[in-house]
Amino acid sequence: MSQSASIELSEYIRDVPDFPKPGIVFKDITPLLSHPDAFRFAIQRMADHYRDVKIDLIVAAEARGFIFAAPLALELGIGFVPIRKPGKLPYERHSYSYELEYGTDTLEMHIDGVQAGQKVLVVDDLLATGGTVNACCAMLEACDAEIVECAFLIELGFLEGRERIKPNRVFSLIQY
Amino acid sequence: MSQSASIELSEYIRDVPDFPKPGIVFKDITPLLSHPDAFRFAIQRMADHYRDVKIDLIVAAEARGFIFAAPLALELGIGFVPIRKPGKLPYERHSYSYELEYGTDTLEMHIDGVQAGQKVLVVDDLLATGGTVNACCAMLEACDAEIVECAFLIELGFLEGRERIKPNRVFSLIQY
Repeated sequence: MSQSASIELSEYIRDVPDFPKPGIVFKDITPLLSHPDAFRFAIQRMADHYRDVKIDLIVAAEARGFIFAAPLALELGIGFVPIRKPGKLPYERHSYSYELEYGTDTLEMHIDGVQAGQKVLVVDDLLATGGTVNACCAMLEACDAEIVECAFLIELGFLEGRERIKPNRVFSLIQY
Repeated sequence: MSQSASIELSEYIRDVPDFPKPGIVFKDITPLLSHPDAFRFAIQRMADHYRDVKIDLIVAAEARGFIFAAPLALELGIGFVPIRKPGKLPYERHSYSYELEYGTDTLEMHIDGVQAGQKVLVVDDLLATGGTVNACCAMLEACDAEIVECAFLIELGFLEGRERIKPNRVFSLIQY
């Protein structure tokens, strides 16, 4: 990808009030995705942050995480390992269940996805309370992988997800 | 992305027998994703097929479609519009329900995602019976978009999905 001029990424994020429930303002990334210069700039900025860092793999949970993880893996020239909801991955799997506000959720990863000692970057579109990324990190730690950092397009700082996933580190392009 | 030497992509697809149910051999793309040279080669081959074609947008349904659509959109320098399961997209939406073997499924797209007359490329990882891509095409046709083609990493020719989505055309990198 060729270098782009600086772009104010937050101009491509749309606030949608009362989604998914009343009182929540949802940060909609679809305007950014539909503007290729902005989308490319976001991927390049993430890639620039990691070009001189030793990383073996990028891991992301479905579905929006895939949108940033796949281009970033290609830009950095490293492999991409998807983490999915139950019933989606066909081969032998690690599984990790975690608490939600009501009930539990489960994530899965192929057992040959990440090996002990590999340096892994976790990518997602948005860091809110950190529940999903925390579950990804726990699953990776159970595989004895080394988590380099967790990278996000957007960080909702007021929800303190960064605190929840300590000691793992956070990098984000847009902060609210 | 730089040009790669030719790679036999099918060597990076793993057969997993009896998934998701007995008698089905699942084509697992995760080995390809974890090998950056193979993943890059797949995206480049798709991009090479479309570099001289007028396309306004790439559209893909979650979740695996995102893995190919997002890098392809960036490589071609055009926008990416996600199609999602219900309850995921925050803004005003088109909705399209379609029949499955048992029951129905629904896909949604933002109303500002695709405009009438725009030339759209539909991308997914795998063409099986064509149910999902057919639903995507129907939703795009309802928006008066022009479907340029439907592009897949893998086409399971024996399931005749190509017939189902006619008159829309199919391009695929690996055929079984």
